Amino acid sequence: MFKECLDSVKENSPLIHNITNYVTVNDVANAILAVGASPIMADEKKEAAEITSICNGLNINIGTLNRNTIRAMLAAGKKAQSLNHKILLDPVGAGASTLRTKTALALISKIKFDVIRGNISEIKTLATGSGKTKGVDANIEDAVSESNLESAVAFAKNFAEKQNCVVAITGAIDLVSDGKKCFVIRNGKPQMGRITGTGCQLSGIMTAFICAGKNTLESSAAAVCAMGLAGEIAWQKMQEGDGNSTYRNRIIDALFNMTGTELEAGAKYEIR
Amino acid sequence: MFKECLDSVKENSPLIHNITNYVTVNDVANAILAVGASPIMADEKKEAAEITSICNGLNINIGTLNRNTIRAMLAAGKKAQSLNHKILLDPVGAGASTLRTKTALALISKIKFDVIRGNISEIKTLATGSGKTKGVDANIEDAVSESNLESAVAFAKNFAEKQNCVVAITGAIDLVSDGKKCFVIRNGKPQMGRITGTGCQLSGIMTAFICAGKNTLESSAAAVCAMGLAGEIAWQKMQEGDGNSTYRNRIIDALFNMTGTELEAGAKYEIR
Amino acid sequence: MFKECLDSVKENSPLIHNITNYVTVNDVANAILAVGASPIMADEKKEAAEITSICNGLNINIGTLNRNTIRAMLAAGKKAQSLNHKILLDPVGAGASTLRTKTALALISKIKFDVIRGNISEIKTLATGSGKTKGVDANIEDAVSESNLESAVAFAKNFAEKQNCVVAITGAIDLVSDGKKCFVIRNGKPQMGRITGTGCQLSGIMTAFICAGKNTLESSAAAVCAMGLAGEIAWQKMQEGDGNSTYRNRIIDALFNMTGTELEAGAKYEIR
Repeated sequence: MFKECLDSVKENSPLIHNITNYVTVNDVANAILAVGASPIMADEKKEAAEITSICNGLNINIGTLNRNTIRAMLAAGKKAQSLNHKILLDPVGAGASTLRTKTALALISKIKFDVIRGNISEIKTLATGSGKTKGVDANIEDAVSESNLESAVAFAKNFAEKQNCVVAITGAIDLVSDGKKCFVIRNGKPQMGRITGTGCQLSGIMTAFICAGKNTLESSAAAVCAMGLAGEIAWQKMQEGDGNSTYRNRIIDALFNMTGTELEAGAKYEIR
Repeated sequence: MFKECLDSVKENSPLIHNITNYVTVNDVANAILAVGASPIMADEKKEAAEITSICNGLNINIGTLNRNTIRAMLAAGKKAQSLNHKILLDPVGAGASTLRTKTALALISKIKFDVIRGNISEIKTLATGSGKTKGVDANIEDAVSESNLESAVAFAKNFAEKQNCVVAITGAIDLVSDGKKCFVIRNGKPQMGRITGTGCQLSGIMTAFICAGKNTLESSAAAVCAMGLAGEIAWQKMQEGDGNSTYRNRIIDALFNMTGTELEAGAKYEIR
Repeated sequence: MFKECLDSVKENSPLIHNITNYVTVNDVANAILAVGASPIMADEKKEAAEITSICNGLNINIGTLNRNTIRAMLAAGKKAQSLNHKILLDPVGAGASTLRTKTALALISKIKFDVIRGNISEIKTLATGSGKTKGVDANIEDAVSESNLESAVAFAKNFAEKQNCVVAITGAIDLVSDGKKCFVIRNGKPQMGRITGTGCQLSGIMTAFICAGKNTLESSAAAVCAMGLAGEIAWQKMQEGDGNSTYRNRIIDALFNMTGTELEAGAKYEIR
C-alpha cells in the first residue's frame, strides 16, 4: 500500500505550490525534490492564484505569516479549491498568538483542506478555537503517549470527521485519521525535534503524496511513515561528533534514497 | 582564460548586492563566499540604492518577488546602472505567472543588464513576451539538446544581440553568448536539478565573476563552468546513502576549494 | 563559571523570539536548538508583542530589515522590556546604509538592550552615530588586533558604560564588556568568516545564554567562547575536499555536542 504511495510521487512528480515560512523553506524545497516532486514558492497575492493554477497541490504553512502572505494564502487556497487541487494546512504556532489562531481558523472556515497537519497543541487549538502552545512546539502535557492513546485517537477521529478532512497529528506517536480510521504510527526518532523544520518538511512531502496518490488517508499516513523512517535511517548513519545539522542533511538524503519497497518494509503502524 | 577569471574573483573579492529569493538565499551567500567574494542581501526600497552604491555588483533574482521587493529591484538596478556597476538578472519563473513575466520584462526595459541568466523556458519567455514554464523548471520540450543545438545557439545569439548583453541559458547543455560568440558548455551533472537553487547560486557567483573579470562574456562562461565542475567534483565524492542535501553541501565545498588552474583544466566548452 | 552557563541553557531550555534576517535564519534556529534552547521566529507587528510575551528572550537582528519588520522589532522590544525579558540587538550592517544606522540607533534609544553584539565597524557606527562598513563585514582598518587591543578594550568599556548594557564586539579577537570588566577572548578560527551567519548564530545562542544564566556579562562571554570553540572543534574535523558548507554544518554539530565541562576547558580568555 505505502509502496504505491511513494512510487506514485516519483512517477507523477507533482508540482507543489508552497506558501511557507522562511525559516525552513530551503529544507522544504529539498525534501520535496528528494521524494521526486517539484516545489515552487510564491507568497505574493498578485500571483498566488495564478501560480497555484499551474501546480498540482498547495501547501499552506503559517510559520512566519504576515499581513501580505495571509492574503496570498487565502487567494491561493480559494483558487486551488476551485480547481480541485489537493490542499494542506500546517498551522504552525496556532495557539501561540491570536494572529496565528485566527488565521488558521479563518483558513479552515474559508477553504476546504484535504489535510490538516500539525502537532497536538496546534490541532487542539483549532478544535477548541483557542490554545496555548510553547512557541512552535507542542506542550508536554498535550503529548500523545501510550497512556492517553485511546482518547487521542478519538480526538483525531472526531476532529477529522468534523472538518471532513484528513487530520495528521505528529509527535512521538503520530495519528492520521479521516474520521473513520486512524493510523497510529511509531516511526521516527525523538532527536528529530532538535532539528528545525522536520514538521514543515513533512507537510511539504505530504502535499506531494496526496497529489500523487489515490487515497488521501493512506497517502498522508505514507508520508508520515516516510519522514519517520528517514529519521531512523539517518540516525543509524550518525557518527561521533555529528549533531543536528548533519542529522538534518542525512534525513533529506534518506528521503532521496528511499524506495517504495523500503518504505513498505519500514513503516510501523497499526490502524484503529 | 578561465583561470584568470576565478583568480580575479579571489584577488578582488567583490562585494555583491543580492536581491534574491528567500528559498535559496543562504546557499547563494555561501556560494559567493566560497568563490572568494562577499555577499550582502538587502531588499527594502528605502536602502536598496544606498546599499548597491557600496557594492561592486548587483544580482537581481525574482524567485520570491513581492510588491515591496520589486520596488527595491528597480531602485537598486537604476542606481547600479548609474554607477556603471555590473548587473545580472535571474528571471526565476518568468512565464509561470503574469507578475513574474511582467516584472522581468519591466526590469530589462528599464535597466541595462550585463547578463541575463535563466533556463531556456525563462529566456524564451523574455524573448517572446510570454511563455509557460513548469514552475521554476524548464519545460522538457524546450530543453537544449544535441539535436536542436544549432537553433538554440542561434536563439541565444539573437536574444543577446537584441538585448545588447550576455545571455546565459543553463541546462543539460549551457549556452553563453554576447550575440557574436556563443560558449557551448558541457560541464555539470543532471543530478544538480534535484537540488533547489543551483541556478540561483550560479547567478550569485556569476555576478562576482563579471565584477572581477575584464570580459563579461568570458567571466560569465567561466562561472557556468565553475558551477558545473563543482557539480562534477561533488558527485565524485558522493557515498552510499548520500542524497541531494549532502550533494548541495559538497557542491559549495567544491567551489570553495576550486583553484583557477583546476577550473581551466576542468572546463568543457566549445565556442560557436 | 562557563560550565554553569551552558549547563543552565540545557536545563532551562529558554524559548527565544527571533526577529532576524532570512539569509541565516535556518542556521540560527538550528544553533539555538543545538545548545538546548528553543527558537521561534515571528516578524509581523500584529503578533510580535504577543509572541515575545510567551518567550524568555528576544533576539533582534536587522540583517534584512524592512519597513514592516522594523515595526515588529519596536513592538516586540518594548513588550519584552516591559516584561523584563532579556533582549539582544545584532545591528547587522549598521553603517552600510542610513536605514540600518538609523534603525539601530532608534532601537537602542527606545529599548533597553541587555546585550548589543556586532562587529567592530557596526559597534563604532552605533557609538559615533555614523560609519562605513564593508557590507556586513567589518572594515579591515577597524579590526581589533594585539597592537590596538588596549584602545579597543577601552572603547568597548566606554560604550558599554554609556549604553548601560553588555557590549560584545566579535572578530579575530572578541571583546565582551559591561563597562567595568572586559573579557578578551581568543577562541575561533578565521575561516568562520567564510561562512555566512556565524555572527547571527552567535547572537541567537547568546540570547539563550543570557536568558538562562544569572550574570549577563559572563553568559555573553560564555556564548562567544562556545561559538569560537565550536569553530575550532569543527575545523579539526575538516577533511580534504571539505569547504565552507560542510564547515557550517560541523560548527552547529559541535555546538550540539558541547558539554559545559568542554566549554570550561576550551574557553580561551583573559579579563581586563
